[in-house]
Amino acid sequence: MSRYFQPHIDRMAGYVPGEQPRDGGFIKLNTNENPYPPSPKALDAIGRALTDRLRLYPDPVATNFRETAARLHGVEPDMVLAGNGSDDLLTIITRAFAGPGDPVLCPTPSYILYRTLVELQNAREVAVEYRPDWSLDPAAFLASGAKLAFLANPNSPSGTALSPDSVSEIAQNFDGPLVVDEAYADFAETSCVGLVARHPNVIVTRSFSKGYSLAGLRLGYLIAQPEVVAGLIKVKDSYNCNTLTLIGGAAALDDQEYLAQTRSKILSTRRRLTNLMRSLGYDLPDSQSNFVWCTGGPPASAVYQSLKERRILVRLMRYPGRPDGLRITVGTEAEIDRLEAVLRELLGGADSPKVW
Amino acid sequence: MSRYFQPHIDRMAGYVPGEQPRDGGFIKLNTNENPYPPSPKALDAIGRALTDRLRLYPDPVATNFRETAARLHGVEPDMVLAGNGSDDLLTIITRAFAGPGDPVLCPTPSYILYRTLVELQNAREVAVEYRPDWSLDPAAFLASGAKLAFLANPNSPSGTALSPDSVSEIAQNFDGPLVVDEAYADFAETSCVGLVARHPNVIVTRSFSKGYSLAGLRLGYLIAQPEVVAGLIKVKDSYNCNTLTLIGGAAALDDQEYLAQTRSKILSTRRRLTNLMRSLGYDLPDSQSNFVWCTGGPPASAVYQSLKERRILVRLMRYPGRPDGLRITVGTEAEIDRLEAVLRELLGGADSPKVW
Repeated sequence: MSRYFQPHIDRMAGYVPGEQPRDGGFIKLNTNENPYPPSPKALDAIGRALTDRLRLYPDPVATNFRETAARLHGVEPDMVLAGNGSDDLLTIITRAFAGPGDPVLCPTPSYILYRTLVELQNAREVAVEYRPDWSLDPAAFLASGAKLAFLANPNSPSGTALSPDSVSEIAQNFDGPLVVDEAYADFAETSCVGLVARHPNVIVTRSFSKGYSLAGLRLGYLIAQPEVVAGLIKVKDSYNCNTLTLIGGAAALDDQEYLAQTRSKILSTRRRLTNLMRSLGYDLPDSQSNFVWCTGGPPASAVYQSLKERRILVRLMRYPGRPDGLRITVGTEAEIDRLEAVLRELLGGADSPKVW
Repeated sequence: MSRYFQPHIDRMAGYVPGEQPRDGGFIKLNTNENPYPPSPKALDAIGRALTDRLRLYPDPVATNFRETAARLHGVEPDMVLAGNGSDDLLTIITRAFAGPGDPVLCPTPSYILYRTLVELQNAREVAVEYRPDWSLDPAAFLASGAKLAFLANPNSPSGTALSPDSVSEIAQNFDGPLVVDEAYADFAETSCVGLVARHPNVIVTRSFSKGYSLAGLRLGYLIAQPEVVAGLIKVKDSYNCNTLTLIGGAAALDDQEYLAQTRSKILSTRRRLTNLMRSLGYDLPDSQSNFVWCTGGPPASAVYQSLKERRILVRLMRYPGRPDGLRITVGTEAEIDRLEAVLRELLGGADSPKVW
């Protein structure tokens, strides 16, 4: 039967999501989920929507949700498109703009899914390396000849973000759609949503999985100029977002006060986690996300394994030609207490360094 | 910006879902939603899942859900794949098996989405006409040279179903994946799930939007041999089904008694609706679905308009080279009471025919 799959699909390995242990008892610092619960208003709104209305199809263009998102960002509703998670939107975008053999620009290292999406379209990845300071050369975008470019901003695994001015320069230097993936923007100081008005080729995607603590709900949205949104609607599944998710998402967006509270806690713990890991000998760029990126210290692979044995999951990231690194999600203070205790036991404090 | 879209996407018109009026007061007999509410057990299960757990990603392979579905159908869990509605699964299948220029067999008239999916892949639709008795020529499948074939069974708009023996003959006569779309099978006398064991090229898709009254929840699943499922998992979005939907869907599957009750009511009303429309001069094949297909009677377009003015929505279906028809969803008895009263007023009874 496998001979019926398209050859490029048959060859693919497929994307491997982060570990989700089925037994409890793990401190999960590996998939950048938010350690705090979602807004109670979002859960209440979903609870109230558990009615006979579920027998009807959802609104295919998510009218109420896009009006809410448009209000928040100061754009028109026809500049908003909802997706079944921002992954759904990244899939829709790739299908719309990149066909077999087309070059697609992916900065590297970055979100590994972009490569998978390119492979699924039988398109061709053009990798552009981040500089050591996690900046990018704008000229590389134009030179690539790519039909489409992805830019995770803030980026994973680095946690760093390019300024809107830098992204604007890239947008101007690129003759194709530039996807600014802002999955982590709720933890950053800046956003590129404002660029959409000036650059018709900029598409900004957002997620509810990180800032809004709703990874289980599957919701994302994008902001782009109306003709881009109109074209992408043709590619999406008619009813790509379910009724409950759209209602919960709109309620979460409306509760910006709750977002500000959890964000503030995470930013505070991020400072602590950054200092901790630096004190243990790792190099960390300043994070604009809800995770930190640790390289150059005690061997990442061994530390990952030792933490896992002690039921703390972090993400071991391996990129060709680069040293392994640990990507650690910012958890609660209590979770980082435990991480700190275990790491000090494993690695020793600054005053009492152990031989690894 | 539109010049950046792939040319075949730019050319597309896009799929147009059935009307979903935003103001209430309509009797909706146009999109084959179930007129009865979902299982209370499904709603309860979702309500209990409104917890902090939503901050975590869903299980990417929907382990609990697929175990439930596997138990129901007497297959192994690795033969089940969950989708964000069966439309998501049809998209995944098309992307896996059909590339640019590849012929894809679509019986006609049938579910119009198949053509949209083919267009999105820049593949090529090979239309095979249903015979007047809504059977298909098995030889046409092999002769088509298609890489993939869709078969809605029961079919829309006809409501008719081929027997598993006929589908088995087609599967044997086709050198590629045969997708048996059983969105309406909950209202039919037979199912083709049993064919999967014998025919490695058969993929059966099911939906929660019709029999289970959960169109708003977006859930479908497919049953196929394990190596097919494994290949399709590479193509799907990692987290294509959200946590609440998977929990509600499993609870709905577990409540087969509730399904049997609503099914029985719909089958009874279907008999009544069939007799009504025949008495008004329409030709109707015997339906195996939750809708009836009416042609050959009073002019479909005018009747559709007159019903809409009286706030009853049915579906006016137009297929090239065929007379227009009305596809009418089986509603509640009260809804069909109202439809009957309006139609008798418009068209006259058998004893007192009005001139149209």
